[in-house]
Amino acid sequence: MKSTARNPAAVDSPLFTAFTEELEICARDLQEYLIDRRYLDRFRPDSMGEAVTLYVQSGGKRLRPAILLWSCGALGGDVRTALPAAAAVEVFHTWTLVHDDIIDRDLTRRGADTVHERFRRVAESRYSSVPTLDSVHYGTSVAILAGDAQHGWGISMMTELSREYGVDPAITLHLIEVLDNRVLNLLVEGEILDLQFARVPIERLDIETIEGMLWKKTGILYRYCAEAGALIGLGRVEPDHPHVSHLAEFTSRCGIAFQLQDDLLGVIGDPDSLGKPVGSDIREGKRTAVVHYAYEEASPGERELLERTLGRIDASEADVREVIEILTRRGGVERTRQRAGLHIEAALPHLDALPPSRWRDLLRSWADYMIRRNN
Amino acid sequence: MKSTARNPAAVDSPLFTAFTEELEICARDLQEYLIDRRYLDRFRPDSMGEAVTLYVQSGGKRLRPAILLWSCGALGGDVRTALPAAAAVEVFHTWTLVHDDIIDRDLTRRGADTVHERFRRVAESRYSSVPTLDSVHYGTSVAILAGDAQHGWGISMMTELSREYGVDPAITLHLIEVLDNRVLNLLVEGEILDLQFARVPIERLDIETIEGMLWKKTGILYRYCAEAGALIGLGRVEPDHPHVSHLAEFTSRCGIAFQLQDDLLGVIGDPDSLGKPVGSDIREGKRTAVVHYAYEEASPGERELLERTLGRIDASEADVREVIEILTRRGGVERTRQRAGLHIEAALPHLDALPPSRWRDLLRSWADYMIRRNN
Repeated sequence: MKSTARNPAAVDSPLFTAFTEELEICARDLQEYLIDRRYLDRFRPDSMGEAVTLYVQSGGKRLRPAILLWSCGALGGDVRTALPAAAAVEVFHTWTLVHDDIIDRDLTRRGADTVHERFRRVAESRYSSVPTLDSVHYGTSVAILAGDAQHGWGISMMTELSREYGVDPAITLHLIEVLDNRVLNLLVEGEILDLQFARVPIERLDIETIEGMLWKKTGILYRYCAEAGALIGLGRVEPDHPHVSHLAEFTSRCGIAFQLQDDLLGVIGDPDSLGKPVGSDIREGKRTAVVHYAYEEASPGERELLERTLGRIDASEADVREVIEILTRRGGVERTRQRAGLHIEAALPHLDALPPSRWRDLLRSWADYMIRRNN
Repeated sequence: MKSTARNPAAVDSPLFTAFTEELEICARDLQEYLIDRRYLDRFRPDSMGEAVTLYVQSGGKRLRPAILLWSCGALGGDVRTALPAAAAVEVFHTWTLVHDDIIDRDLTRRGADTVHERFRRVAESRYSSVPTLDSVHYGTSVAILAGDAQHGWGISMMTELSREYGVDPAITLHLIEVLDNRVLNLLVEGEILDLQFARVPIERLDIETIEGMLWKKTGILYRYCAEAGALIGLGRVEPDHPHVSHLAEFTSRCGIAFQLQDDLLGVIGDPDSLGKPVGSDIREGKRTAVVHYAYEEASPGERELLERTLGRIDASEADVREVIEILTRRGGVERTRQRAGLHIEAALPHLDALPPSRWRDLLRSWADYMIRRNN
């Protein structure tokens, strides 16, 4: 198999331009589909409607819907047929963000308050004279329920594939089963491992263990998007079809690379374009690849600082800055970047197994973008 | 229509014996279906498996699965076909309990720790030497994810109706859509209202407003069980079929009565048979029917005590006992009991519209049991 891995499309190439244009079309179609009264009127009271749509309204890159739609196209399907599934995975993804933000105690996402933080503030301003008030608990409660409502929104939207878009009900039921069983359980496992790893000594975790967790946390949902689009494109439940398998493998790899890039941006990214503060991974003690690689090369004094600062919610700005310097100086950032590149290189040949098409070209640019993005 | 409402089956009547026997069969079948390795092996790591199955293993009355199965039978269906749906709603119900327990800060359910409390203890005993520890946050995090996993378990189990039990996929997709859209959103709304009402002055809420909230919190899921069983029994998606509508109306009423009985037991119930402490509704400031009715008849001094104590998480045992006395003395308990009885009376005639059958008799006893139970 000949791969184009080592020659990714340059940012100003026609291929990349086509990709960004098509991603914008995908984002626009999706927004139109989602921000519709037939959905928004479901959520009561008004505060719940606001909580449920907060992240959906604020956009996001729509990388998951894109891979789903384009995988459908790459297997010969009509991408418009797959739109409910693309919207469903985006909303499904959103509930995991809302619940993870509670768990990770993140206060900012996409440049604004996270759901639990927003409703903590609402409670504080609205009910501050009432003695039962516990505004943090109120914010958390609203965010738990908002995530639950989004979970339901995603799944019920998936049924539209057959109820409104003519997809074989056997495919739709298969997609719902896989999403709410295997995919969900791996996502939950990844999140729990992420939480538990923060309590494990850094040197006890090797890169494969960390990537195994990343694949569960992020890779599996990307993989699912490719499989779902592919099965809709194929028109039957045949997950072992070679084209479906190649797409799944391709996307698994890209998903890990995406998360490695995420962890790297969590250290050296620009808070403004990220929409969240740098340093929260450090304060939560996340065992990222960046930490793993830097720790390997760190001096005893640096290791001591890493051990002391990682996982300290109240770590000072100065200590966090010092940790960031160590992570960069000791090659954590650079080796993580290389590792992400290797995953994309390993992913791309899987595309060569698909028939040539415009959609396949878009998937190639999509893979490049996963590690090129700076937000 | 002739109704048997005013002559409920006595506890020692053959009808009631048949009911308890059949409820036991239902609980046994369900337990066999649910506690199976094909499900239990899904949940990783082990702690998640434990968290997800905690309430499922501890049993419960299985009143929701029973109404689903018997509604299927009452409309001429084979009740065995509906078993995946009965198991699905039971598991679906369970995630709402796990998340509600976090929100209501309940520490005990079915005589044991709630999920978040259990994992708070686990964190405390296992990680107590680690400075990142926030055991309450860890317990909450595990419980959020456990509820999410149960939500997915319930929905994916519903797909078995068609994938393994031969139910028309159109029915299954309809049931999934309704459960994860209308039902879920009403449940969430009910929970939010319950939370918000605790901050509203007692005299501002009338009994209809309170019951509207109860119907959303509890009634809608009972109603859904009846509709789901009825549609499976009917063999087609026809929610407006008169038999389906009568069953839905019957169950809505019974669901409200169930919740009124619950609120009443929360005041005068026996903590041992309830499996949870009496008084938590009072400390959370719940605006129950019992509180509403007692407040109407209370003296200015008693009102002052109610206002001061309801919603005080740290209220003393003595104050809680005093509140319980007022709630009883001022007729709150008695009028709530009467109100629950009226709902059952209004519910029963709907059964007369169904063809006579053994299942219809069971549904009648089921209605009586909703307000007769002491746990």
